[in-house]
Amino acid sequence: MKAYLENIKKKSPLIHNITNYVTVNDCANTVLACGASPIMADDQNEVEEITAICAGLNINIGTLNTRKIEAMVLAGKKANELNHPVVLDPVGAGASTLRTNTALRLLEEIKFAVIRGNISEIKTLAGFSAATLGVDANVADQITEENLDDAIVFAKNFAKKTEAIIAITGAIDIVCSEEKAYVIRNGHEMMAAITGTGCQLSALTAAYITANPDHVLEATAAAVCAMGLAGEIAHDRLGALDGNATYRNYIIDAIYNMTPEQLEKGARYEVR
Amino acid sequence: MKAYLENIKKKSPLIHNITNYVTVNDCANTVLACGASPIMADDQNEVEEITAICAGLNINIGTLNTRKIEAMVLAGKKANELNHPVVLDPVGAGASTLRTNTALRLLEEIKFAVIRGNISEIKTLAGFSAATLGVDANVADQITEENLDDAIVFAKNFAKKTEAIIAITGAIDIVCSEEKAYVIRNGHEMMAAITGTGCQLSALTAAYITANPDHVLEATAAAVCAMGLAGEIAHDRLGALDGNATYRNYIIDAIYNMTPEQLEKGARYEVR
Amino acid sequence: MKAYLENIKKKSPLIHNITNYVTVNDCANTVLACGASPIMADDQNEVEEITAICAGLNINIGTLNTRKIEAMVLAGKKANELNHPVVLDPVGAGASTLRTNTALRLLEEIKFAVIRGNISEIKTLAGFSAATLGVDANVADQITEENLDDAIVFAKNFAKKTEAIIAITGAIDIVCSEEKAYVIRNGHEMMAAITGTGCQLSALTAAYITANPDHVLEATAAAVCAMGLAGEIAHDRLGALDGNATYRNYIIDAIYNMTPEQLEKGARYEVR
Repeated sequence: MKAYLENIKKKSPLIHNITNYVTVNDCANTVLACGASPIMADDQNEVEEITAICAGLNINIGTLNTRKIEAMVLAGKKANELNHPVVLDPVGAGASTLRTNTALRLLEEIKFAVIRGNISEIKTLAGFSAATLGVDANVADQITEENLDDAIVFAKNFAKKTEAIIAITGAIDIVCSEEKAYVIRNGHEMMAAITGTGCQLSALTAAYITANPDHVLEATAAAVCAMGLAGEIAHDRLGALDGNATYRNYIIDAIYNMTPEQLEKGARYEVR
Repeated sequence: MKAYLENIKKKSPLIHNITNYVTVNDCANTVLACGASPIMADDQNEVEEITAICAGLNINIGTLNTRKIEAMVLAGKKANELNHPVVLDPVGAGASTLRTNTALRLLEEIKFAVIRGNISEIKTLAGFSAATLGVDANVADQITEENLDDAIVFAKNFAKKTEAIIAITGAIDIVCSEEKAYVIRNGHEMMAAITGTGCQLSALTAAYITANPDHVLEATAAAVCAMGLAGEIAHDRLGALDGNATYRNYIIDAIYNMTPEQLEKGARYEVR
Repeated sequence: MKAYLENIKKKSPLIHNITNYVTVNDCANTVLACGASPIMADDQNEVEEITAICAGLNINIGTLNTRKIEAMVLAGKKANELNHPVVLDPVGAGASTLRTNTALRLLEEIKFAVIRGNISEIKTLAGFSAATLGVDANVADQITEENLDDAIVFAKNFAKKTEAIIAITGAIDIVCSEEKAYVIRNGHEMMAAITGTGCQLSALTAAYITANPDHVLEATAAAVCAMGLAGEIAHDRLGALDGNATYRNYIIDAIYNMTPEQLEKGARYEVR
């Protein structure tokens, strides 16, 4: 895991984020915390140029609007053309037709390096895009030790179909290609009490894979371990009066202070 | 007051927020802090569906634009149709024609369960919507012990006219129906040095009333007490070097850690 | 420096901000922290009215879109008409044609009191607006002790051309009119690890110059000193586990607690 973080610090890649206005500030500070640099831009008239000066792109479909969708498509295509890795965070896919259809359109028009979401978002994309995928019916709404095997098969199938690395995050995280899955057990349940830890992870993932273009699977796993580990470190700091706001800050602080060695030592995963 | 917070923790209602981009992150973390869940969505093409999967709706007119106004109307009507409680926060009504007219249009087209604003915003709405309301001329721009009686009459009249619970917040808060007013004295003056404590309170109110649909007046009073009490608890934690940024975090922390018993004990109100 | 901060506390000016959605919350809390009041509004249908009830205007071109650009022009013209000071923060000028052209259009249509950016943004504006400006070729992408003299000449020339106070911020800051330059050495390099310290400084500058309309150069220098000093004070507070998120909060806290005397004593500048 160590080398993937070292490469961010070494290269300090510029990451273009087209993201929602709820968690955008935390995403920017998270990208800075790990050693990369963020740019946010979402207007059709500039996204291609902004993407072109960056090295990676993160597309997050929270707080969508018509104007932004076109910008996402333009930026994604430009990034593909330039061979920049692109992350998709299908926030709320399944919650509305607009979000589901937008995610599906993006999957069709853009080649993603990584798709990161919770199990319900990923199931929505898989279900709609391949009615015959089959196993998703066996995957419950939370990944547990009991249904983990089924979830891995499901995730690998979706990775095959999309030709992307799939990251499904929750109490247990799965990061996989068609052939290989990292099962990650970092993190703390209190992270769910903060808005945007998922969004932050997607932005962080964009930084990790952009700095490690030849190891997208491993770099994504490293990002997921790093976010979870930050959640653990931050939780250890909390005092009796601290709540989710202080926790949010401490998590970003932990990403800021995380050394490659700390990540190496703290990452808890198995390969399946 | 106790039961109203218990019900949020028990039901964890999903709250749809159409709100401004200044304080949206704090609103989301506040909703999470009290035990409910937030969704933010403001595009016409999805707001009805998003509202339909939620249990309550919070409409805040800060940083308005034409696109958002139509989304507010659509979401509000859908919420009414589904009998979901709707909160209106008329941020800046009176500061521009757009905000005043939008608030008035929303009042006309949507049935609100609660309208929460400062005295000047509420006076604007009352003044424009009923030139004959009368008493508002007697209400100054700040509610004080001296003009409190007049302010209560004014608020009760506006509650009657709008058939909504009215929450006027400031140094002294009034939460009332046509017949009954809670006068609340929780809070700390330093809360005015943080952007968005009003917005956060509206989001919190949406969580409280959604979890307590049969006690909208009492649940709104409980939300106002909870926000003020959080301001007191957070202020007690401040050290000599802390300022409004740390205070902002500590308030959300205090909402996160607030127990029903703590709210019961700390709520300072009288009924008139 | 002392008097400029005293005047903010005394007058508590209302500042209209048309700014990006990444750092808007921090800008609002920063304006509140220094003793002024923020309003954010960016719709064409209300910006003129909002500007009219304010005393100063801050225009920041991060996360631009077509809708916002027209609002910026309208608000800027109205502020000029009312003789309110206007600050321009040309975020990302040079990074895209849209941003560069928008900044140039704003420079053409609006009279700015202060233009604040990093050296690369200011060079972009100077280079495009005056191909013959000459010296900018000598100015590197960072201001250092070695190229400081050239940078001052460059900045004074741009101040002459734009009839605005120019604030170029970085490791060393330059604030100048055509004739007089403040070279400021407050600040800490870790400030670059937080998103939006530049945006916050522009909002703070708007507060400072609005409260000190007859001393725009000096008040801008005071704002730049105050922001840098806050960065120093906040850095001194950091513990081993703190990172950029806590640092962000501590900087705003330091602005909140800064006394005129503290600013007077802590400001480190020379006049050239």
